[in-house]
Amino acid sequence: MINKIKMGMVGGGAGAFIGEIHRMAAALDSKIELVCGAFSSDPQTCLHSGQSLGLDASRCYASYQQMFATESTLSEDERMDFVTIVTPNHLHFPVAKLAIQSGFNVLSDKPATFNLAEALALKTLLDDSSCLYGLTHTYIGYPMVKEARQRIIDGQLGKIKKVVVEYSQGWLASSDDEASKQAMWRLDPKYAGISCCMADIGVHAANLAEYCCDDEISEMCADIAPTVTGRVLDDDGTVMLKFSSGARGVLLASQVAIGEENRLNLRVYGEKASLEWSQLEPNSLWLKFPDQSTQILRAGVGSLSPLTLANLRTPAGHPEGYIEAFANLYVNFAGQIEAKKANQPSPEYAEDMPGIHQAVRGMAFIENVVASSQSQQKWHSFTLQPMSQK
Amino acid sequence: MINKIKMGMVGGGAGAFIGEIHRMAAALDSKIELVCGAFSSDPQTCLHSGQSLGLDASRCYASYQQMFATESTLSEDERMDFVTIVTPNHLHFPVAKLAIQSGFNVLSDKPATFNLAEALALKTLLDDSSCLYGLTHTYIGYPMVKEARQRIIDGQLGKIKKVVVEYSQGWLASSDDEASKQAMWRLDPKYAGISCCMADIGVHAANLAEYCCDDEISEMCADIAPTVTGRVLDDDGTVMLKFSSGARGVLLASQVAIGEENRLNLRVYGEKASLEWSQLEPNSLWLKFPDQSTQILRAGVGSLSPLTLANLRTPAGHPEGYIEAFANLYVNFAGQIEAKKANQPSPEYAEDMPGIHQAVRGMAFIENVVASSQSQQKWHSFTLQPMSQK
Amino acid sequence: MINKIKMGMVGGGAGAFIGEIHRMAAALDSKIELVCGAFSSDPQTCLHSGQSLGLDASRCYASYQQMFATESTLSEDERMDFVTIVTPNHLHFPVAKLAIQSGFNVLSDKPATFNLAEALALKTLLDDSSCLYGLTHTYIGYPMVKEARQRIIDGQLGKIKKVVVEYSQGWLASSDDEASKQAMWRLDPKYAGISCCMADIGVHAANLAEYCCDDEISEMCADIAPTVTGRVLDDDGTVMLKFSSGARGVLLASQVAIGEENRLNLRVYGEKASLEWSQLEPNSLWLKFPDQSTQILRAGVGSLSPLTLANLRTPAGHPEGYIEAFANLYVNFAGQIEAKKANQPSPEYAEDMPGIHQAVRGMAFIENVVASSQSQQKWHSFTLQPMSQK
Amino acid sequence: MINKIKMGMVGGGAGAFIGEIHRMAAALDSKIELVCGAFSSDPQTCLHSGQSLGLDASRCYASYQQMFATESTLSEDERMDFVTIVTPNHLHFPVAKLAIQSGFNVLSDKPATFNLAEALALKTLLDDSSCLYGLTHTYIGYPMVKEARQRIIDGQLGKIKKVVVEYSQGWLASSDDEASKQAMWRLDPKYAGISCCMADIGVHAANLAEYCCDDEISEMCADIAPTVTGRVLDDDGTVMLKFSSGARGVLLASQVAIGEENRLNLRVYGEKASLEWSQLEPNSLWLKFPDQSTQILRAGVGSLSPLTLANLRTPAGHPEGYIEAFANLYVNFAGQIEAKKANQPSPEYAEDMPGIHQAVRGMAFIENVVASSQSQQKWHSFTLQPMSQK
Repeated sequence: MINKIKMGMVGGGAGAFIGEIHRMAAALDSKIELVCGAFSSDPQTCLHSGQSLGLDASRCYASYQQMFATESTLSEDERMDFVTIVTPNHLHFPVAKLAIQSGFNVLSDKPATFNLAEALALKTLLDDSSCLYGLTHTYIGYPMVKEARQRIIDGQLGKIKKVVVEYSQGWLASSDDEASKQAMWRLDPKYAGISCCMADIGVHAANLAEYCCDDEISEMCADIAPTVTGRVLDDDGTVMLKFSSGARGVLLASQVAIGEENRLNLRVYGEKASLEWSQLEPNSLWLKFPDQSTQILRAGVGSLSPLTLANLRTPAGHPEGYIEAFANLYVNFAGQIEAKKANQPSPEYAEDMPGIHQAVRGMAFIENVVASSQSQQKWHSFTLQPMSQK
Repeated sequence: MINKIKMGMVGGGAGAFIGEIHRMAAALDSKIELVCGAFSSDPQTCLHSGQSLGLDASRCYASYQQMFATESTLSEDERMDFVTIVTPNHLHFPVAKLAIQSGFNVLSDKPATFNLAEALALKTLLDDSSCLYGLTHTYIGYPMVKEARQRIIDGQLGKIKKVVVEYSQGWLASSDDEASKQAMWRLDPKYAGISCCMADIGVHAANLAEYCCDDEISEMCADIAPTVTGRVLDDDGTVMLKFSSGARGVLLASQVAIGEENRLNLRVYGEKASLEWSQLEPNSLWLKFPDQSTQILRAGVGSLSPLTLANLRTPAGHPEGYIEAFANLYVNFAGQIEAKKANQPSPEYAEDMPGIHQAVRGMAFIENVVASSQSQQKWHSFTLQPMSQK
Repeated sequence: MINKIKMGMVGGGAGAFIGEIHRMAAALDSKIELVCGAFSSDPQTCLHSGQSLGLDASRCYASYQQMFATESTLSEDERMDFVTIVTPNHLHFPVAKLAIQSGFNVLSDKPATFNLAEALALKTLLDDSSCLYGLTHTYIGYPMVKEARQRIIDGQLGKIKKVVVEYSQGWLASSDDEASKQAMWRLDPKYAGISCCMADIGVHAANLAEYCCDDEISEMCADIAPTVTGRVLDDDGTVMLKFSSGARGVLLASQVAIGEENRLNLRVYGEKASLEWSQLEPNSLWLKFPDQSTQILRAGVGSLSPLTLANLRTPAGHPEGYIEAFANLYVNFAGQIEAKKANQPSPEYAEDMPGIHQAVRGMAFIENVVASSQSQQKWHSFTLQPMSQK
Repeated sequence: MINKIKMGMVGGGAGAFIGEIHRMAAALDSKIELVCGAFSSDPQTCLHSGQSLGLDASRCYASYQQMFATESTLSEDERMDFVTIVTPNHLHFPVAKLAIQSGFNVLSDKPATFNLAEALALKTLLDDSSCLYGLTHTYIGYPMVKEARQRIIDGQLGKIKKVVVEYSQGWLASSDDEASKQAMWRLDPKYAGISCCMADIGVHAANLAEYCCDDEISEMCADIAPTVTGRVLDDDGTVMLKFSSGARGVLLASQVAIGEENRLNLRVYGEKASLEWSQLEPNSLWLKFPDQSTQILRAGVGSLSPLTLANLRTPAGHPEGYIEAFANLYVNFAGQIEAKKANQPSPEYAEDMPGIHQAVRGMAFIENVVASSQSQQKWHSFTLQPMSQK
């Protein structure tokens, strides 16, 4: 009997949207088993949530501290192989920190930490441990995103000239929208930190661009702002970009773009060809050429890269979506854990997974955008140095 | 601790595409647990498959007969609550029959049986038992398909005039395509019965039209044929339709439509409005009006029916796909089982699930299409009478 | 100074939609000049219309009979080179007949005649004259339609298996829609003949399919009907088709498809590839292949056939539309006249133009569809024999 | 007999793409008549071009100077009513200047002048004359662009928050593309001035945004650059925008975006609703709402503004394109001339036409973008002050 990878969960009690998504993503491929959890700071909610998920009461912990302490005492056959963190954002770091200190592999919801300083501290912790760390930058999990990356790496686009990436939503367009719990903490600096829109979704767009282009943002010129009276954090912004490779680009993000769902689009223009991908039709990838027909690559059709195929569950004509992309992150992280348990190197598909490097760059992106937007100087150099006053 | 619904599986050993899809669909929502299986007619393959799925060897059965016999002896806490049948098509009926005779609820892959006579026999068996029966007509599981049905039932389209439904694929376009195992049995009358294209996909289109329109095909005029030299079964066809309500329509199906993935589209034209849905962009539903802007209903956006929302896992902007639609069938069937175990009536969402009625109509559709196509008479009345010589 | 081709017009007085379209189409390329007209049966309207178009009163004729008589007396430098007929349908034939008898080339709005018997009579007249005859089957004028035809003729699709063609509109969906003048005569057998929907738009779909596939309908099985109480002529229908080449197909036409504008689509499935074109996005042509990326051919991009390019006015990125397609018919017909005047063979682009052959087949299509629909026999052989009682 | 508006043309000899487009646009509606021209600086080419257009040799002038001088001596019945300027860009101003000084109304291809100083000088000239001046910012001529403007002016979007406008092409992506005549002068500062991409297409995007939003750019932060080795002028750029109303935005322009045709798109996000329009599908306008179905407004369908309808030639379902949009500018300008000749105020539809105000703002946009891009300062205030050294 082949053992599944055993997962503990911190956060994600009854009613928590993202916790439910994580559980579906983990469950989809029957390779991961939820074995324990500290689902809520309220012990009753925790117990109730755990039991409704089929857990024994003994594995429903009143706190993550208790969970790590107790699980550490179990045999390897029984104790969780990794913890997935789906708490409110400000707790991501302390939970991850204690997990690593307790020797557990960590899969964390995004953002990795509250700020860049914490992300760097997390990196130091990880450097000193043997724990694995994964970050659920979901959109990286789409098969055709991987195909885009491979085509660019393979040189099919030639040298990249321009990158246009956008993530637009409309759900925070009016002050009425702030009533919801989701909205409230995202707009409150105490819980959200120094940015709302860029921290919540702009960072996904930046990550997508860097991942697909295998490149890094080196300079930026940002204009972010709150657009609704009474708000202190940005709900919209534009960032002009320069990349290490010399490519230029622009990133658009908005939470006040009425009528947009999760309009996450990427366009990459190279010297030889271009490509376009859109999250709302994730199974297509558009390839464009000079004076030649545009081609629509489709998941499951024709010749796709091994990495793409490794992240695809169905043949052509069966649309895969957000949950499958999310599940790819879980499967890939589980692949790393399996390899680690077997003392073997991770297979390529498993390595293709956001980790602490992306965590640090993500938090740095947010701080750099805010710094750039506050500056009267046009170009701001991307730095991994945390902002001073926080 | 809340118990999951316990599932046994017949068929679906390592390498079987559809078995894997069923397992993902069953696993997605963590409400169903695979507890046993007879995954293959080869005991070794069965054991290997079951163990790789985390099953104990004692629950990996060498045959479905053995599985039903042994599971029947287990306590209710332990034994499977239902069996899912994912064998080759010709075994669907004998497995379902023995399952029902053994007292097990059945969820069957499509088609329910080899022919209409068997489907009627299955219906008789079920009428005499207390077993639940579900049929995985996957496309019915899409949330926006349910929205389409609700809008039509609510009268938003007025009296229906015309229905255009199509399911086109290209994977059997040339004789080269027949090499694959999938292709071979679908084209062999011994395994496939009297039809290939209509039995495999035309029946999905018919089911989709009847479901959404809450109507039944009453007459038809069919033209089906093999288009590749050497084939005896149809790989393409058109069927003109009349419905009980008086609506007229047309059904197109093809497996030789090169370049089409699973182009399953439905258009319904009413006296007041029209709608359009496409499986390849399943999260949108187009509503059209006389001399007024077309509206795009989107999963998660605006006011949707309770049934739609009950089959939706994510808010707007997170594309859901084929596996989620499939999982809806599992969740809904599990809901029926839960209700039955609690001696309560099934909730509405759980009842919204293809069962023996659709199984009989599906097999009848196939036989009627073949009869109509062979006839020189224009209109053929839809009958539940099995064809004589079989 | 190069002389323009001189055009006379019968019908198309102030307020007539289609007359205005014809004038724009004729004017667009500055190769044709309107020199005279009999725009209305009312002499005042005729004079007023002609003068508002910049004509001298002496060339505004009170009747087409007078126009043909008088123009015949003018010198070749002065008299019209062809007459364009944009009257109500029942006059198309008598006007064309007299024009030919008077020695004038004729460009006629569709349908060519009231019925097939007239179309055959017209053919006989033309066979015995040296007059040129053109028919404005507009949709044939789109550049990417010509590209579709060329690709099929060149064998890029291989042997054609299946043709799906559709023309759906919604403007006659309810009896309220009948108030308009346009609607009234189309639904009145006295003016419209034996069919409304098939005669008005079904025939366009049939023509498009035959043109692109370079094939002819040989058998059909039709189901047409009025769907609104009180109507006697069809407003909707489906026709299953067999072609001379052995290809099979289906034609859908509707005037009660609420919300559809002029949804004229063509799909052709061959043994090697498939294509798709839609009038509502006329500058794209989709090419599909087995297990390879779909390609979007675009007007002005890449390698297109000489015939396509000859019918295209702008480079890539400048959408061309309905009027340009219509203008292509005028330019091509003018090319035939120029060649005739120069006693030279017409260039290829000019020959690519619907004429009396398409006129006869169009009228035959209508009569065959009606006959097939009335028959209880499934397959009806396409015949050029007019229906008996008319 | 109603007289047509008489047009003279400067430039546009045989082989000139844009001259041909202008002639088609002028001819389409039979309201404008070409009566004379100075089509080329080469007298033979001029004569040949004019005669092939049906002009008498006496109205084919060897130079625009001669044309203005001679036409001025003709009677009002005979002489041209306006001159349309389709020369290479650097001649637009001198020709327009002399035309105005000679008392002729001017319709000029874009850009109005070589630089802002000339545009201001042109404005002064016009202020002191009674001549009419129109500028062919083509994209403003699309009916659904006018609908967008009207909806915004009517307040249906509420206060505008964000504007995203883009014009991307790929035709200058590589140095190979420079061989063409079109490319060469656009990339040569001697002929093109201080900018290539922003001057050629960025200005269209800016004009579209200002027109639709009824707003003006007040500040900008630009990043433009040549992306191909050896070029000195920009072929790509991004400009962050602030508008007078307080709205923010971003403008993207590129001539190196391989595979893009003329991807001119506009999105406007307001407090109550949003809209989206794309030149490549110009007959649709997308309206988006908070938590409500997206609506697709279509040319000819439902309730559209009078201004939209005045610029539309066909009912629903007949795609109109680029030439029709261009023709709208001609018709509207002709409407101004008719009114002037009749000593009456122009009707509303005729006033809706880019003129000297847009000419000045367009040239200012170019100079401001270049100045902003050269500056290290983030925000640059839009100024009508010409750049010093030119």
